[in-house]
Amino acid sequence: MLKYALPLQKLIGELEKLPGIGPKSAQRLAFFLLSRSDDEVGELGLAVLALKAEIGLCSRCHNYTTGDLCPICEDPGRDISVICVVEQASDLMALERSGEYEGVYHVLGGALSPVADIKPSDLYIAELLERIREMRLREVIIATSPTVEGDATGEYLRQLIAQLPEPPQVTRIALGLPVGGDLDYADQVTLARSLRGRTKMEG
Amino acid sequence: MLKYALPLQKLIGELEKLPGIGPKSAQRLAFFLLSRSDDEVGELGLAVLALKAEIGLCSRCHNYTTGDLCPICEDPGRDISVICVVEQASDLMALERSGEYEGVYHVLGGALSPVADIKPSDLYIAELLERIREMRLREVIIATSPTVEGDATGEYLRQLIAQLPEPPQVTRIALGLPVGGDLDYADQVTLARSLRGRTKMEG
Repeated sequence: MLKYALPLQKLIGELEKLPGIGPKSAQRLAFFLLSRSDDEVGELGLAVLALKAEIGLCSRCHNYTTGDLCPICEDPGRDISVICVVEQASDLMALERSGEYEGVYHVLGGALSPVADIKPSDLYIAELLERIREMRLREVIIATSPTVEGDATGEYLRQLIAQLPEPPQVTRIALGLPVGGDLDYADQVTLARSLRGRTKMEG
Repeated sequence: MLKYALPLQKLIGELEKLPGIGPKSAQRLAFFLLSRSDDEVGELGLAVLALKAEIGLCSRCHNYTTGDLCPICEDPGRDISVICVVEQASDLMALERSGEYEGVYHVLGGALSPVADIKPSDLYIAELLERIREMRLREVIIATSPTVEGDATGEYLRQLIAQLPEPPQVTRIALGLPVGGDLDYADQVTLARSLRGRTKMEG
């Protein structure tokens, strides 16, 4: 059985680890790269290496950033009396693309999950409560994904926030999204509608 | 409109240049990489960079190799009286996966195309004729893709080879492949059948 040249085999192995890329696609991509110029392939390789070296988390909302604060937290035009809580920074980006929202965000870093053993202490929940306590918030929008884990995380947050002194209003984005779906894959119109149709959370 | 952090934007731009990866997939991949460890992402980046630095073309058949000759040309078990002519090294790999072929290869580097302005001098055709002249070949198998360009290239080669002194037999892999399809995407069984069913080329 023929083996590929070692560097080719190595790259195919690395590409196969990416989501949605199987052995066949990995081969196609590797051969595509082989057929490109040294410069073009170098650009991609350097971009991959720069990614983790240059990007960290916003010290306030845990969005990705190259500085201390992310572009949204640094933007004086954003309404800092509303925090939208999301699981991942990619969800934040999806909401930004909807163009519907002018407040700020808080990235949890995931959702509670007994199965995957993700506990409240594994998420940026304490930091969220600290932000709510420090600032005079009008509203906290829970925009976790409409999955079992996302819903449970939202309900857990609602209960925690309700126990704070002078708690802000807590809302949940409307289920315009298909239940069980992934927020990051929703289209912009659906996301915009689900933000507009958000409802007050009550115990 | 929100911009991604610059290194993220750069990587998304580079990923979008890959075949079969649109803006949405590029974003997903970039965010996936952001969520991985520094080591994992480093491995991918280095594998991409090593690719072009370490891989060159076999001096005999123009397959990819890290040495002077590719593993197939170096293999004493291969039948050097048969040369299978393919457009790309990825086609060669597809044929190898079929496990049907024991001869050697010649990679043309593409197919003749008036539209893309690819002329005989842009392909390794002179090198193929030189190899045929130097060696006592039984057979040349034309395994260019069953497209207009691939068929035209095959017919052009057949005519050239027929003009050589003591020309070897020239065959064409059978059209078990769907016409207009891409050789690299064919399954192994279909490829094996099309090799077995190859037919003699006559003017």
